[in-house]
Amino acid sequence: METGSRVLAARQRRRRGNVYDASCPSRIVLDHVTSRWGTLILLVLLDGTHRFSELARTIGGVSEKMLAQTLQTLEADGLLSRTVYPTIPPKVEYSLTPFGTQAALHVRTLTNWVEENVSAVLKHQSKQVG
Amino acid sequence: METGSRVLAARQRRRRGNVYDASCPSRIVLDHVTSRWGTLILLVLLDGTHRFSELARTIGGVSEKMLAQTLQTLEADGLLSRTVYPTIPPKVEYSLTPFGTQAALHVRTLTNWVEENVSAVLKHQSKQVG
Repeated sequence: METGSRVLAARQRRRRGNVYDASCPSRIVLDHVTSRWGTLILLVLLDGTHRFSELARTIGGVSEKMLAQTLQTLEADGLLSRTVYPTIPPKVEYSLTPFGTQAALHVRTLTNWVEENVSAVLKHQSKQVG
Repeated sequence: METGSRVLAARQRRRRGNVYDASCPSRIVLDHVTSRWGTLILLVLLDGTHRFSELARTIGGVSEKMLAQTLQTLEADGLLSRTVYPTIPPKVEYSLTPFGTQAALHVRTLTNWVEENVSAVLKHQSKQVG
């Protein structure tokens, strides 16, 4: 029985999420990787390791507070890792985990599509007004 | 000169967006396709045409107001089309445009990853607490 329940527990841990279900935790993970700042952080870190100030400079419009908060969320999800070097002042670097790289690559496919097609969307919007 | 400025205007219309730039319209398009309900609507419509009530049933937790509002946004972007049949009561159907199908396929790749990896994220989060 013990073994049986352990097998069941392992199976449930591996269970696939369902984003259509409002109570499924996959909804929260989806929110994290598709949030405005989450998306852009994953994207920048695909280029490699970055310091907080570099992220703040690259991502237009992000506040220090929102950047720190989103980095913390993505770290807690296991998508990125944070390394603190004991210098004065301490140097803090962020990089994607292999797991986060997978997510970031899918995010990049989507943002690439958006960047390539933004003019088509704008053209459509202006036709609707006219 | 006239031709020159027309060429320039055409080039700018085709210009690639930059999601790192807070003032680039691609940011708004990105928000639309990555918003919680936007994402899920694109996903359901990849299966085919659906009525409003079917969308409301499939997407757990969405209110009628948010569903209507998001459908309108995605329609204005040219990502989906709305067909009204003159029946009593009028039948309204939504389907992806070919353009919207492109976006939806990228969204599906990302949501598939999330559904497949949600247990890994949960496992990481629980390790952090412990």
